[in-house]
Amino acid sequence: MNENKDNILFPKGTLIPIGGNEDKGIEDSEQYTLEFVEDGILFHVVQESGGTDANIVVIPTASSIPVEVGANYLEAFDTLGCKNVTVLDIRSKEDSEKQSSIDIIKKANCIMFSGGNQSKITQKIGGTTIHDILIDRYKNETGFVIAGTSAGAMAMSNEMISGGSATESFIKGAVRMRKGLSLIPELIIDTHFIKRGRFGRQSEAIAKFPHLLGIGLAEDTGVIIKQGTHCTVIGSGMVIVFDGSSLSHNNEKLLEEGTPMTIANMTIHVLSNSDQYDIKNRRVTVLPIEAPFI
Amino acid sequence: MNENKDNILFPKGTLIPIGGNEDKGIEDSEQYTLEFVEDGILFHVVQESGGTDANIVVIPTASSIPVEVGANYLEAFDTLGCKNVTVLDIRSKEDSEKQSSIDIIKKANCIMFSGGNQSKITQKIGGTTIHDILIDRYKNETGFVIAGTSAGAMAMSNEMISGGSATESFIKGAVRMRKGLSLIPELIIDTHFIKRGRFGRQSEAIAKFPHLLGIGLAEDTGVIIKQGTHCTVIGSGMVIVFDGSSLSHNNEKLLEEGTPMTIANMTIHVLSNSDQYDIKNRRVTVLPIEAPFI
Repeated sequence: MNENKDNILFPKGTLIPIGGNEDKGIEDSEQYTLEFVEDGILFHVVQESGGTDANIVVIPTASSIPVEVGANYLEAFDTLGCKNVTVLDIRSKEDSEKQSSIDIIKKANCIMFSGGNQSKITQKIGGTTIHDILIDRYKNETGFVIAGTSAGAMAMSNEMISGGSATESFIKGAVRMRKGLSLIPELIIDTHFIKRGRFGRQSEAIAKFPHLLGIGLAEDTGVIIKQGTHCTVIGSGMVIVFDGSSLSHNNEKLLEEGTPMTIANMTIHVLSNSDQYDIKNRRVTVLPIEAPFI
Repeated sequence: MNENKDNILFPKGTLIPIGGNEDKGIEDSEQYTLEFVEDGILFHVVQESGGTDANIVVIPTASSIPVEVGANYLEAFDTLGCKNVTVLDIRSKEDSEKQSSIDIIKKANCIMFSGGNQSKITQKIGGTTIHDILIDRYKNETGFVIAGTSAGAMAMSNEMISGGSATESFIKGAVRMRKGLSLIPELIIDTHFIKRGRFGRQSEAIAKFPHLLGIGLAEDTGVIIKQGTHCTVIGSGMVIVFDGSSLSHNNEKLLEEGTPMTIANMTIHVLSNSDQYDIKNRRVTVLPIEAPFI
């Protein structure tokens, strides 16, 4: 992965991490009902991919019910008028090396990762030929879109949150992390952010990696990221940005696991529909209140 | 209240707001089991009040089961060796005007407000003679302690959080506020902060009153506040401080209710045992990692 890191500083493609649907208290994020379609998140994915003729490939690898999830997405994209949608049901590293899989990925205008368990994505796709192609196309091809909801969004990080308790948060060790797909290594992305109370685990993640930027996506909310830096909020909820670049005290490295943490001077932004954020310059642009909902 | 505001800028007494006990998922914060005693929070209350001979008055007004709660506190303080503890069971504004109640408050070294519903405290004590005496003694008497757990801590604010949904947070109108006892009008205090995921409602409260400081107390965690400004964290959890003084974008005033909010450049501190915070100067002092647990 490291040889790619410098090259993807100014990628030409588009990333669209999405916070997941309202989860109705069911812990398993696969239980979504695609309600986000009516709120326009998927519409943005289609638009960014070139419209209803775009070649869209759904990868339900994160899910433990990939067939049902794939079928749900086919229906959702069909509702939006998309004519060219495929499900690529990758269930192993071997599947990621198959020529048929590689051909599908090479022809796609848009990859859509489903929700489920983000570690399944990294285990079955991370380090494979498909992963290399995704990074290469994202880096070099204008208009190529990689979208992901819930686990599919979280896997875009390099330092990826793989789990962690909300109620034990701010206790060192409450967040679990592993290597993600590293599509946008500047970010630590978390999802279902509001309803599952994930402030603590994102704060701990940023305390571990204070040079990275934390992005907490609410349900039915996403971010369109262009050139790896220009973010625009879409959807009905909010995006919480954690900037640790001004941290004055951070004892994460020193503490034993299980100990409450001290973190001073974390900067937080709460952004909503059409607000913009510049990752490289860490700058917020808030649109006027009368700006239209996008 | 207003005539007191200026005078209490440098009060001589001590406030000890406490975040409430671990709530075990039961929504009603009266269901606490006083486990915090073993972790030393009540020990600090006794120590600040002058030791086991201190005249301690428990006010279970917030609770809907005041007799049981009062008995629990008597037992807890007895365990600590306190010999002079009284329960003052105020259930109405009339109770707050009784000479017997006034005499008890006048003689106390320490007032301990229980958990329950903070609005009951303001309805039954706010604006009464007892309230005036509490403010006057807190302002003028060195060593006089007012402690409160959960609702009893939240009632110390002037702009008091009276309710609000965690899952609807960052939506304008999700937090409900009313006037508190105004013992420390510089703060908006929230409790049960981690386990109930209350980041959003505190952020909204600070967006409403950006000149105030938000203090979110975890379960089994408190703050000893001297001279209305010098805070020291006690207990096993953490205190989250919300400082809105650098806010660059805050559309709270403009938004309709039910709309997601934008808040840019909120500063957050996560403090734990023995860390210190200066309210007037908004400054964190973090003790070295090898400092003893207090």
